Amino acid sequence: MAALTDFGLIWGKIQELVSRIMSSSKTSIPRRSKVKDMSAEVVDSNPYSRLMALQRMGIVENYERIRDYSVAIVGIGGVGSVAAEMLTRCGIGRLLLYDYDTVELANMNRLFFRPDQVGMTKTDAAVQTLSEINPDVVLESYSMNITTVKGFDVFINSLKSGVDLVLSCVDNYEARMVINQACNELRQTWMESGVSEDAVSGHIQLLIPGETACFACAPPLVVASGVDERTLKREGVCAASLPTTMGVVAGLLVQNCLKYLLKFGQVSPYLGYNSLKDYFPTMEMKPNPQCSNAACVDRQKEYMESKPARDAAAKAKIEAEVSSVIEEPLHLDNEWNISIVDDSDAGSSTAANTSSILPEGLVHELPTADKYSEQVGPTVTDGIDDDLEELQRQLDALNSS
Amino acid sequence: MAALTDFGLIWGKIQELVSRIMSSSKTSIPRRSKVKDMSAEVVDSNPYSRLMALQRMGIVENYERIRDYSVAIVGIGGVGSVAAEMLTRCGIGRLLLYDYDTVELANMNRLFFRPDQVGMTKTDAAVQTLSEINPDVVLESYSMNITTVKGFDVFINSLKSGVDLVLSCVDNYEARMVINQACNELRQTWMESGVSEDAVSGHIQLLIPGETACFACAPPLVVASGVDERTLKREGVCAASLPTTMGVVAGLLVQNCLKYLLKFGQVSPYLGYNSLKDYFPTMEMKPNPQCSNAACVDRQKEYMESKPARDAAAKAKIEAEVSSVIEEPLHLDNEWNISIVDDSDAGSSTAANTSSILPEGLVHELPTADKYSEQVGPTVTDGIDDDLEELQRQLDALNSS
Repeated sequence: MAALTDFGLIWGKIQELVSRIMSSSKTSIPRRSKVKDMSAEVVDSNPYSRLMALQRMGIVENYERIRDYSVAIVGIGGVGSVAAEMLTRCGIGRLLLYDYDTVELANMNRLFFRPDQVGMTKTDAAVQTLSEINPDVVLESYSMNITTVKGFDVFINSLKSGVDLVLSCVDNYEARMVINQACNELRQTWMESGVSEDAVSGHIQLLIPGETACFACAPPLVVASGVDERTLKREGVCAASLPTTMGVVAGLLVQNCLKYLLKFGQVSPYLGYNSLKDYFPTMEMKPNPQCSNAACVDRQKEYMESKPARDAAAKAKIEAEVSSVIEEPLHLDNEWNISIVDDSDAGSSTAANTSSILPEGLVHELPTADKYSEQVGPTVTDGIDDDLEELQRQLDALNSS
Repeated sequence: MAALTDFGLIWGKIQELVSRIMSSSKTSIPRRSKVKDMSAEVVDSNPYSRLMALQRMGIVENYERIRDYSVAIVGIGGVGSVAAEMLTRCGIGRLLLYDYDTVELANMNRLFFRPDQVGMTKTDAAVQTLSEINPDVVLESYSMNITTVKGFDVFINSLKSGVDLVLSCVDNYEARMVINQACNELRQTWMESGVSEDAVSGHIQLLIPGETACFACAPPLVVASGVDERTLKREGVCAASLPTTMGVVAGLLVQNCLKYLLKFGQVSPYLGYNSLKDYFPTMEMKPNPQCSNAACVDRQKEYMESKPARDAAAKAKIEAEVSSVIEEPLHLDNEWNISIVDDSDAGSSTAANTSSILPEGLVHELPTADKYSEQVGPTVTDGIDDDLEELQRQLDALNSS
């Protein structure tokens, strides 16, 4: 009996020990608790202090509005995963993630995924990592191929839930055309991104249905340069990639996403990155009236028809600004010449008219971006048209093969 | 006796169970095994296939040489931690990491650190994450302040172990001046990086003792713009920061580090990033003969004295290139006009003379960077000199306070 009593006591202790080990192994990753309101308080325990400081610095008028926004990221690879992490750390309201691929060791030369996630779907692995980083973000994952009939249906329905911006981070032409189709149908503003197959250049592009060129109007330079995607899919051949180029492109993409959503600075219509020379070309592309995408042509018509209303609104805004400038001049010590953009200006690619004034005695080594957009003008050049025809021939050949 | 026998059996099973739980909790993060040689084989299990593809694409002559290089990163914050992760994923030989800070929740708005690492030193947390990502990289961590007398001693001795490049990712003027002192003394090439207090601009800069301006010759624009660092250290006030800006600066920094080490493309002497307008100013700065740093002045003398030898080497190289061009012309289909840089050109800021040729019919919207460096010339402008004097006054005031 004595032995049994001892056994009972020991058994109890062992159970306690086992459950302690079990629970400690389960909670080995302590999550931070959710935060109800974003606070600007400067304490080490506040994950949002450095973001809320953007308001005090005069960059963003109302940072906490980021919680109201939903962003869809299509393609959770080298660019998309980093874009998702940046938006998660910025405290975006809701992220929708789309990918059908799984994590492989061959992905480890880009940021974000870890070797212990090999074999997981990219969306599951992303949700695991992102929810640990910031539990305040609502994450929706779609592990599916948007280029299938069923996948396209789920994709377009998910966007109808109310998405403020779609970020395209896919690595092929077909998926870009599917995103383009969905966004043209839904009048959905989106941003496209891409990295070249030799890993040393990339681009981002803003697409507003009816207002800017759509992806079918004018594919970006990286696609237009004529690399045949099929060459990349041969056995034993793969594209090069670098975490640097993909990190830069993701950073430029999400920075423009933040400028668009939180209404500061100027959203770039197109920005290239040539890393061999650290050269960053910019341009603007108007829609092509002969675009092969019917929804794009419809959006162009709507945009033309709404021109009188837009002109009237623009005129009223300028008049209001002129009178407000007379009433309250800009601070003379506003060194960075930052001005807050009016809400009614949402979606415009030239949202803020900030000029770049340097401290006395310093000069810009390059002319300002404004100077170039004056010179360049917004129409597509004949040279690009020629190239598009050549591209169209290549695509037709690709589709018929 | 029966009870005791049962107890013995059960105890054995319990011990087995406990050790199984213990070992499973220890190995919950499966590491990838080390890789002896970098392979270009295109299989999902090869973590280096997309990097070795840079050779097949004609970008890098010998990618595997990256394993021979050691890079020191000072400051493992928003820029330094991402730079360390990029180099780790690229398979750098050895990384030396310096920081004296600990991880806080207030750091979670930048990439890299996780909430479960709060309270760890930044160097320990970085080693934990990086060794899981790539066990092939040799990691050395220095959790200490390089601006103390003892810290400086350890810092300078660690650099003497054979470091190919130092990356400065610190957030204050004092630490930059300490790195500058050490690198001037050791004839150590380094790259400086910085992000503005309003989080929307940044820069990188290449510093070659004696050849380019050192940090004491001409502080970068971000420092020169005159923000008093003391204003950032007041109770309840902190600088703003964004994962986007820091990710872009880290990407540009490590890309230039890779170009420098693996000898491809052109290493930028100075590259700025103004995110409000997506504007990227470049410039070159020659050393200041009146520099207050004695070691810099010594390096300038050495550089002047070695001019005849450099000129002779440059002449011989041009002659060799001319004869090789006659013997083997460049491929006509070398669309990106990539040329491999000769080994003897190591460290030169204008390593490769690649011109930027676009496909027929396409035009650059901005003049090439070359055009600007012709216009600008390599000397520091009078305007910057004026500004430096003002800065010197501010620094003197700061030091005397």
